[in-house]
Amino acid sequence: VASRRSAPPVVTLLTDFGQRDVYAGVVKGAILRALPDAHVVDLSHGVRPQDVREAAFLLESAYRYFPPGTVHLVVVDPGVGSSRRIIAAEAGEWRFLGPDNGVLSCALEDALARERTPTARRPGRRALAERRGRVIEVLEEAVRRAQARALPAGAVESSTFHGRDRFAPLAAALAAGASLEELGRPAREIVRIALPEPRVSPGGVAGEVVYVDGFGNLVTNLRPEILPRGEMVFELAGATVAGLARAYVEREPGELVALVGSTGRIEIAARESSAAEKLRAGVGTAVLARAAGSQRSGT
Amino acid sequence: VASRRSAPPVVTLLTDFGQRDVYAGVVKGAILRALPDAHVVDLSHGVRPQDVREAAFLLESAYRYFPPGTVHLVVVDPGVGSSRRIIAAEAGEWRFLGPDNGVLSCALEDALARERTPTARRPGRRALAERRGRVIEVLEEAVRRAQARALPAGAVESSTFHGRDRFAPLAAALAAGASLEELGRPAREIVRIALPEPRVSPGGVAGEVVYVDGFGNLVTNLRPEILPRGEMVFELAGATVAGLARAYVEREPGELVALVGSTGRIEIAARESSAAEKLRAGVGTAVLARAAGSQRSGT
Amino acid sequence: VASRRSAPPVVTLLTDFGQRDVYAGVVKGAILRALPDAHVVDLSHGVRPQDVREAAFLLESAYRYFPPGTVHLVVVDPGVGSSRRIIAAEAGEWRFLGPDNGVLSCALEDALARERTPTARRPGRRALAERRGRVIEVLEEAVRRAQARALPAGAVESSTFHGRDRFAPLAAALAAGASLEELGRPAREIVRIALPEPRVSPGGVAGEVVYVDGFGNLVTNLRPEILPRGEMVFELAGATVAGLARAYVEREPGELVALVGSTGRIEIAARESSAAEKLRAGVGTAVLARAAGSQRSGT
Repeated sequence: VASRRSAPPVVTLLTDFGQRDVYAGVVKGAILRALPDAHVVDLSHGVRPQDVREAAFLLESAYRYFPPGTVHLVVVDPGVGSSRRIIAAEAGEWRFLGPDNGVLSCALEDALARERTPTARRPGRRALAERRGRVIEVLEEAVRRAQARALPAGAVESSTFHGRDRFAPLAAALAAGASLEELGRPAREIVRIALPEPRVSPGGVAGEVVYVDGFGNLVTNLRPEILPRGEMVFELAGATVAGLARAYVEREPGELVALVGSTGRIEIAARESSAAEKLRAGVGTAVLARAAGSQRSGT
Repeated sequence: VASRRSAPPVVTLLTDFGQRDVYAGVVKGAILRALPDAHVVDLSHGVRPQDVREAAFLLESAYRYFPPGTVHLVVVDPGVGSSRRIIAAEAGEWRFLGPDNGVLSCALEDALARERTPTARRPGRRALAERRGRVIEVLEEAVRRAQARALPAGAVESSTFHGRDRFAPLAAALAAGASLEELGRPAREIVRIALPEPRVSPGGVAGEVVYVDGFGNLVTNLRPEILPRGEMVFELAGATVAGLARAYVEREPGELVALVGSTGRIEIAARESSAAEKLRAGVGTAVLARAAGSQRSGT
Repeated sequence: VASRRSAPPVVTLLTDFGQRDVYAGVVKGAILRALPDAHVVDLSHGVRPQDVREAAFLLESAYRYFPPGTVHLVVVDPGVGSSRRIIAAEAGEWRFLGPDNGVLSCALEDALARERTPTARRPGRRALAERRGRVIEVLEEAVRRAQARALPAGAVESSTFHGRDRFAPLAAALAAGASLEELGRPAREIVRIALPEPRVSPGGVAGEVVYVDGFGNLVTNLRPEILPRGEMVFELAGATVAGLARAYVEREPGELVALVGSTGRIEIAARESSAAEKLRAGVGTAVLARAAGSQRSGT
């Protein structure tokens, strides 16, 4: 982690707290109590409630675009109040904090793989295991020390809002420069989430939708580098989308379009419209990529 | 209020401005014009339109988790443009600013009560009255002085957006260190909002839902310390919830669960689901807490 | 642009990214990578998808309330990935950055007109043309230089997320003090959006709704200074609203009310309710302002 002498330490928040409540604001308050010059940035509070997989996907897509030393805190935590562990990690230029339920795992694997080769996109499955020393489970005494700096007098730890009572104090400690060693002990195993992998089938490459964004764009798990060369056709939800466009405007408004999205994956969109609504498609919808000249599936 | 030499002054915003408009952003801009190093934190802009009671509840639940010296600005203001006063106050380590419609009152009473005993949760009803000197009504000349620093040349004060035209300049003045004396004169009375109090009845303790959060959790006005000892049962909206859990995961997904929430009040939730939808319950729904062995109500 | 020695440089974001995704957060991350002390403020991420006109309106209503030197970045960009240009501009005390699709044009015209007379509200139509030298089209080599400072190693420019890959780096460069000359060459013409102008008709002044805010308030293109003196009546969507109120509370809850809103335009609201829902009115709904004594339209 690079030194950050003059720059304020950055902490990002990725949660399922939504926009109605003060939960995210309170997490920021607790961080600022312990670390007044922290710069807390919202990644999103719009993760679907308890959707650990979605949070893992979003963190992986975002973490690299933040300054060296940034602490990425994820609080999507259906096991709050139970004995699930809190983990912290270092990978690449960044630090990570969250419950041990898989929310961090996709970003960690990506970041560890990129340490070796910056352009790597498909980390080896053993990357995390090899670097165990850089993932720790946080110990209770570290939580207590951090709470003493972050929480107001008389605060009682809740069993439902660890974002405020445990994660915010720890995030502030990490952002203030605490080492992983100060916070815990090496984690032997952590819970991992794997996004589904595409499969090569006789008819083409079979993938699926792994995320639907707020525009209704369907993000698939297909990457252009795993597809055969030449013109492609994409089939999903009964529709056929021909070719990879470079920009939405290459199609007519409302028309379906396939292009390489900002995470490097192929996305199916509808120009100035919602592909998700148009196709009634969502996470898990099957997508077949086949060469343009090949037979249609099912015919 | 503690001195804040190196730390940027914090201002929080709690409004009903919603997410679509630029209103909250403009309030921040005006604060930054007057106080460029201010750190403005969103508490929430998702208060139901004109719901003063909800804002009062949310502020009370959040204010303590911010750094000493934080200025809490609340703009939920159905009387905007009328002769309703603007009030400012100091209590505990924090400062408060908002319309005199009750939005500040719950937090002020809580903070004043905690000045005497940090763990107090039920402030005496006379706390505010005793400390009148620390609640002021803002005078027009102070508004004018603050506006001169915060608003752009040629700005015309509106009668519909006091958040921008009056509250933001005043919040910047407070955060810059202005004393209450500089801004106004002691307020004799302020409008107060009281959350409904639970009543002890023959069948148990009768309370009600006072807030529904974005997860659909039903926050009641029952606190565990006012309930009889021993195993409890909670009845609401025709359902019965047995026992106080320590964590959501002690129940099955979708199952109702009662636990002590993050504000110290008993909440009825549905694990990984919405209790509000499941029970069609909302603010005002009656909740009866009774000893586990006692007779069901109405039988 | 005033010097900003000690104050952190401010960048505002106005986008259609919504609240679910991490897009806005990632834009902030990229800005902070290049300019760690930047203060990034959300204007709104709730612009209707691809609604360039709405974004232009919102920016015009907001830009003046930010500190001198603020960089206003707008990313509402249906032409992303195409050959549409990126433009940057200086006007008044502020700087502007966005796609050349009209999103900046209303604010630029307003700011240039106000340079001559701070209270001017209706800029001459030739203001922009006269000041061409202060609107530039950004050149590719400037994008590359800015990207080198803002984007992580191995980042591949996407054709769908220029907010992250092109606008954020450029916003950081502008906020760090780059001159327009360093970023590009004078733009001969830029795309302009004009809000519809009211027309004087025999029966009164005919305007229309140009924006509906989150409260359901209907913002019209009528300004009080273009209306005849004396008591007015407003007709829209089959309803008649008498008189200009100074505050919502001058009407009963739910009742329609006309008043001068925070942008200086006449707004039709329903006290503590939504006029848009009540009248089933929206952007484009015709509004007729006539003298109170005059004949009703259509009778």
